[in-house]
Amino acid sequence: MPASAIRKLVPFADAAKEAGVKVYHLNVGAPDIKSPRCSIDYLMDKCKTMHHLSYTNSAGFLELRKAFIEKYYKKIGINLDVSEILIEVAGSEAFSKAMQIAADRGEEIIVIEPFYTNYQTFAMLNGITLKAVHTDIHDGFRIPPIEEFEKVLTPKTRAVLISNPCNPSGKLFSKDEMLEIGEFCKKHDLFLISDEVYREFCYTEEPHFSAMSIPGAEQNVILVDSVSKRYNLCGARIGCIISRNKEVMAAAMKFAQSRLCPPVFGQYAALGALDTPQSYFDEVREEYIRRRDVAVKALNNMKGVFTPKPMGAFYTMAELPVDDAVNFAKWMLTEFRVDNETVMITPAASFYKTPGEGKNIARIAYVLEVPELKKAMKILEAALKAYPGRTI
Amino acid sequence: MPASAIRKLVPFADAAKEAGVKVYHLNVGAPDIKSPRCSIDYLMDKCKTMHHLSYTNSAGFLELRKAFIEKYYKKIGINLDVSEILIEVAGSEAFSKAMQIAADRGEEIIVIEPFYTNYQTFAMLNGITLKAVHTDIHDGFRIPPIEEFEKVLTPKTRAVLISNPCNPSGKLFSKDEMLEIGEFCKKHDLFLISDEVYREFCYTEEPHFSAMSIPGAEQNVILVDSVSKRYNLCGARIGCIISRNKEVMAAAMKFAQSRLCPPVFGQYAALGALDTPQSYFDEVREEYIRRRDVAVKALNNMKGVFTPKPMGAFYTMAELPVDDAVNFAKWMLTEFRVDNETVMITPAASFYKTPGEGKNIARIAYVLEVPELKKAMKILEAALKAYPGRTI
Repeated sequence: MPASAIRKLVPFADAAKEAGVKVYHLNVGAPDIKSPRCSIDYLMDKCKTMHHLSYTNSAGFLELRKAFIEKYYKKIGINLDVSEILIEVAGSEAFSKAMQIAADRGEEIIVIEPFYTNYQTFAMLNGITLKAVHTDIHDGFRIPPIEEFEKVLTPKTRAVLISNPCNPSGKLFSKDEMLEIGEFCKKHDLFLISDEVYREFCYTEEPHFSAMSIPGAEQNVILVDSVSKRYNLCGARIGCIISRNKEVMAAAMKFAQSRLCPPVFGQYAALGALDTPQSYFDEVREEYIRRRDVAVKALNNMKGVFTPKPMGAFYTMAELPVDDAVNFAKWMLTEFRVDNETVMITPAASFYKTPGEGKNIARIAYVLEVPELKKAMKILEAALKAYPGRTI
Repeated sequence: MPASAIRKLVPFADAAKEAGVKVYHLNVGAPDIKSPRCSIDYLMDKCKTMHHLSYTNSAGFLELRKAFIEKYYKKIGINLDVSEILIEVAGSEAFSKAMQIAADRGEEIIVIEPFYTNYQTFAMLNGITLKAVHTDIHDGFRIPPIEEFEKVLTPKTRAVLISNPCNPSGKLFSKDEMLEIGEFCKKHDLFLISDEVYREFCYTEEPHFSAMSIPGAEQNVILVDSVSKRYNLCGARIGCIISRNKEVMAAAMKFAQSRLCPPVFGQYAALGALDTPQSYFDEVREEYIRRRDVAVKALNNMKGVFTPKPMGAFYTMAELPVDDAVNFAKWMLTEFRVDNETVMITPAASFYKTPGEGKNIARIAYVLEVPELKKAMKILEAALKAYPGRTI
């Protein structure tokens, strides 16, 4: 198992910070937005009378599963039976299990490139081969003609894996795009693993179109979800796997039993979070739109830089006028300072399977407050002018 | 992946309960002992001022890793550097990762039989073959001569896996037994994965002898630990993996990064639990000794039943005068009642690899309070007399 290319930069950031340098983190998806108070308060209330903290059902508290259905999924138009949802140890466990359920060792899953790096990690751990369908930064990462999917399809293909909105690109796949992929999966009898953990971070006027809403794909779709981003409860480690396919849910339950149960304190926090008022989401959304607009405008004003306008999540991909974004990122951390400050970005190469793709691209997470974000952009711009490996 | 044989009984227990029957659970390791208040209070205190619940380091809070070392491991004679401990999502993740680190697909791990069923689950999931060394109920489950280990050793063997005290047998392996296994591992350059989650449940006068204390085996030992049993925090899902082998810890870190971080609320509860006073452990120990004595005496007084006196954990294995413990367990749940009450036990066959072993054995968890435990024993005795498949 190889070390994460992204994690390799961490020691350089740590060293900079130890030397007293302020590092603006545009690299991580760990927002500074507050968790809903109703979530933490509910957990505290449960703790007051807690006698002993036993295991829950391996599928999670029945109460929590029912509450997800009634208070969240119903509201977004997804009607579920309690047998169709299972609580997982965050999105990480949910998508790794979804992949294991969909494909055996030696089989293949089609993934939309660029994709979340850990898809590759879990594929490798389970002997699954990822085949990439490329989406291009200059095309705003839109889904290519379905022929591109047919090209990578083999008799070993078992699933298509998509994240919508997409980490790392920030691309929000449209209803039409999702329907096209759904048709492809139905036609070839493939699972469609849809990672929708950024669902509440959509910046268009139309509502998010879930894979669960693709007509006739009920037996194909495995939905991966999480409270981590939605309620800023990354540390709770609570997510879920949802499917109308009974065999999928039976397999998910067997996997779940092997690790006994999901974290119980986190389950309480999730239960409390389900009472989060709509105003919370509205405020968070407005804040991210502000941040996105600042980041995208600043980036596109830099000489030789191009970024599309992302309509989801809190990331954007920026093409940079540099030889190699890995070298550039490392150089900023180790050598470049403006008033003893620097910036950390995520080189994008590890989000791609196609060799050479993403080499001059970086993922920018716009998770800082606007004034900080503006400062970070100024430093990035100065860095691009000073970097010895610049290409313009 | 097959369904757990143990879990197959659950629907029968549920049906009995729905029909108004009281079921005494001697089947599960979920004790009714209270969690230390200092643990829950510490978590609540942290919650009061919590702004947003972000990820921690993939290895867990540095503060928690340091506290484990200073407040717990140092006290039991294990001196660790912070680089030698990594927080896992409970013992379940710790031992599954330990197995993955020790052996690749197609390789083998020697396990002491009877063993915790999920060892087999995780071996299967990772394409690892378990080779069993048999320990016998009539011999009090003591480790056989080392020749028995040599017999199952092949060029593909990578590790020995032991739980001490042992779930399911309750066997506490002695210092001499551990040293013998340690010698074997050193001689053949094998990892020794030691699952010590029941360490605080020892009923001899000598202290527990950890695999970490085997001289010269520093590079071999991978310790699996958990707060689940020690502090009755099963639902917190916090455990750890400990090794002085730098390559092991580097591999553990790569696995840890792929699932981002351990549950944060649980990490706080664990941090608080480290201030649990010694009196808590003393009281719990006395209570379990009382329960064990009640269970062992009652079982050995039943005609045709034999159980050794377990010196660790909170389980004992009982040989029963029945054709098949699976059928007997199911029969009690579906047909046998005393004053509308019955008993649930765990058939032991799935704790064995050797075909036929454990067929007439059940694991009894003495996790009920003494008066309840006595009632359950009376029902079990009556059931053995009435069971159509009895062998005496």
